[in-house]
Amino acid sequence: MSQLPTPALVVEARTLEANLSTMAAALPGDRLRPHVKAHKCTALAARQAAHGHRHFTCATIREMEGMARVGLGDDLLLANEVLDATRLGALARDGGRVTVAVDSDATIDAAARGRVPEVLIDVNVGLPRCGCAPEEAGRLADRARAAGLVVRGVMGYEGHIVGLEDRATREEMLEVSMAELMKAAETVGGEAISAGGTGTYDLNTWATEIQAGSYALMDTAYAKLGLPFAHALSVLSTVISVSPDWVVADCGLKALGMDHGNPGVAGADVWFCSDEHLTLAPHEPMRVGDRIRVLPAHIDPTVAYHEHLHLVEGDEVVERWDVDLRGW
Amino acid sequence: MSQLPTPALVVEARTLEANLSTMAAALPGDRLRPHVKAHKCTALAARQAAHGHRHFTCATIREMEGMARVGLGDDLLLANEVLDATRLGALARDGGRVTVAVDSDATIDAAARGRVPEVLIDVNVGLPRCGCAPEEAGRLADRARAAGLVVRGVMGYEGHIVGLEDRATREEMLEVSMAELMKAAETVGGEAISAGGTGTYDLNTWATEIQAGSYALMDTAYAKLGLPFAHALSVLSTVISVSPDWVVADCGLKALGMDHGNPGVAGADVWFCSDEHLTLAPHEPMRVGDRIRVLPAHIDPTVAYHEHLHLVEGDEVVERWDVDLRGW
Repeated sequence: MSQLPTPALVVEARTLEANLSTMAAALPGDRLRPHVKAHKCTALAARQAAHGHRHFTCATIREMEGMARVGLGDDLLLANEVLDATRLGALARDGGRVTVAVDSDATIDAAARGRVPEVLIDVNVGLPRCGCAPEEAGRLADRARAAGLVVRGVMGYEGHIVGLEDRATREEMLEVSMAELMKAAETVGGEAISAGGTGTYDLNTWATEIQAGSYALMDTAYAKLGLPFAHALSVLSTVISVSPDWVVADCGLKALGMDHGNPGVAGADVWFCSDEHLTLAPHEPMRVGDRIRVLPAHIDPTVAYHEHLHLVEGDEVVERWDVDLRGW
Repeated sequence: MSQLPTPALVVEARTLEANLSTMAAALPGDRLRPHVKAHKCTALAARQAAHGHRHFTCATIREMEGMARVGLGDDLLLANEVLDATRLGALARDGGRVTVAVDSDATIDAAARGRVPEVLIDVNVGLPRCGCAPEEAGRLADRARAAGLVVRGVMGYEGHIVGLEDRATREEMLEVSMAELMKAAETVGGEAISAGGTGTYDLNTWATEIQAGSYALMDTAYAKLGLPFAHALSVLSTVISVSPDWVVADCGLKALGMDHGNPGVAGADVWFCSDEHLTLAPHEPMRVGDRIRVLPAHIDPTVAYHEHLHLVEGDEVVERWDVDLRGW
C-alpha cells in the first residue's frame, strides 16, 4: 500500500467481508436487494452475490447496464424514474430481468414505450422526493397493466428515517411510513414490497426486500446509528505540507462527497477541504510524506469520484477493483 | 439539446467565448496562466490557448500529463506539492516545460529525485494550506539550487481572499498578502511571481502571472462578486416526478459539487439533493419531462463528476468535449 499513488480509495477486505456476512445472516438471499449506488463496483456486487443476494437495486441506467454486462442481471430494479426507457428495454431483450419504478402517467408511458416488461409503483412514504401519493397507487397500477406492463408490487423508500440516530424514533416513524405503503400495496397488488435502507434493515419487517447499500462500506454519517457494520472504506492520503499549526493532505473536494460535511481523520481535527487539499490539525506532530486514512462523511458521492477501489489486508493491496458503474 | 440524456453538463458557447475574451483583454498572453482544474478539459484549454494563453496551471499530475499529451505543454506549472515526482520528470524528458511548486525540504528532494527541472517556492500568504513561511523561502530556494533545480521564483495563492464579496476588503487584504509574497520573492530570486485567482484577477498587480480558472465557466459562489464574467456552465436536468408541493429532477450529489451548498435553479427554491435527485419547489407549475438548468454552487468538483461538456448555441449541441483530465 505504501506504493499506491494518493488519493486512493482503500477497502479493508476483512471488514467488508464481516459487513457482508452480518447482513447476509440478517437478511438472507432475496430478503436483501443490495443497492449498488453506494459502491458502483461490479466486483463488489459479485461478492454480495456470493453471499446469496442475486437481486440488485440500481439508481441509474448505467448501473443497470453494467450489472447485466458482468452476468449479475438475474433481477435488476431501477429504483428511480426515467423518461427515456429505451436502453432499459434493450437490456430486457438481451435477457436480463428488468424492473423500473414508476410514479406517474408519464413514467408509466415511458416504460411501455421503452418496452420495459415490469414495474413497481413507487409510493411516497414521507420523504419529499419521488413516489405517488398512496391513494394514487391503485390507479397507476391499473394504467400500467392496461399498457401491457407487469406490476410486481410497490416500492417506498423511507429516506427521511434511515439516518435518524435514535432507534426508537426510527421505529415509530417507520410504522407510520409503512402503514402508508401497505395501504398502497393493497390497491396495487403484486408480491413485492420493496423498501428500507441500512438504517432500517432490521426494523422494516413490512418489506419483502430491503434496498440497503451503505452497509457494505459504511461512512461516518451511518456510523452514529450503532449498527453492526464497520467502516470498511477510507481514502488513503499523503501529507504534502506541514505548517506549525496545521498540515495539508492530498485528498480534497474531488476525492470526497461533501454533502454530509467534512470527512473524519483519527487523531486530528479537520479544518476544511479545497479542490485537492485537506487542511487538518493533528493532535500529534505529522511529517511530510506521512500517510493518513480519511473517512468520508458520505460514501456514495465519494466513490463516484474514483476509478478504483483497492482491497487491502494489512498493508497489502490484494485486489484492485474498477468503479465501473459511474456516470449515467 | 432535447435529445441529450440527463444529467448533462452544458456550456453556453457564446458566454464562454465572452468570458475568455474579457479575461484575455484584461490579462493578455502570459499575464494569465489559466488554471485547468476548474474545467479539466483539454478542448476548453485549447480555446484558452487560442486566446493567447500558452502557459497553464494544473493541480494534479494527471492534468499535467493530459495537457502535454494534446500539445499544450509549452509551460506547465503544477501549483501543488508532490512526494513522488517521477511522472513529472518523465513528462519533462518528453519535451514539455515542467515546473512544480515546493514548500519543504521533502518536496524539494522529491522534485530533484524525480528529475523535474524547475520549481517555484510556494509561500503561504494567509490561507491555511500549503506554502512555507515567507522567512523560510530564501533558504528553500538555496536548497533547491544546491539540488540542481532551477528556481523560477515564488508562488503564493490568496485563496482566503478571492471569494470575499466586498471588493474593498479584497483589495486591503490582498495588499497585506502580497507584501508577504514580495518579501519572500526578494530572498528567492527568479522572475516569476505566480498568484491570484478569478476574484483578484484585476486587483493583483504584484503577480507577474495570474492563476485564474473559474472565470471561464463561473459558478454561483463567484457570481456574488460582480465580476465581468457570466455563468457559462449548467447541469441540464429532467423533471422526473411531480408532487403537489415539490418536483424532483435527475441531478443529484453525483452530478454536483456540494461543498459550497445547494445549486441554484431559476424560478424555484431548491430544497435538497440526494444521490441522483434534486428536490425543488418551483414558483410556477412544472410537468414530468420538463427540462431545467441547474447552476452549480462550485464548478470545479461538479465538472470532475462528468465525462463530457456539451457546448451549446441556443438549443443546438455544437460540440461535445471530453472532461479528459479527471483523476490523479
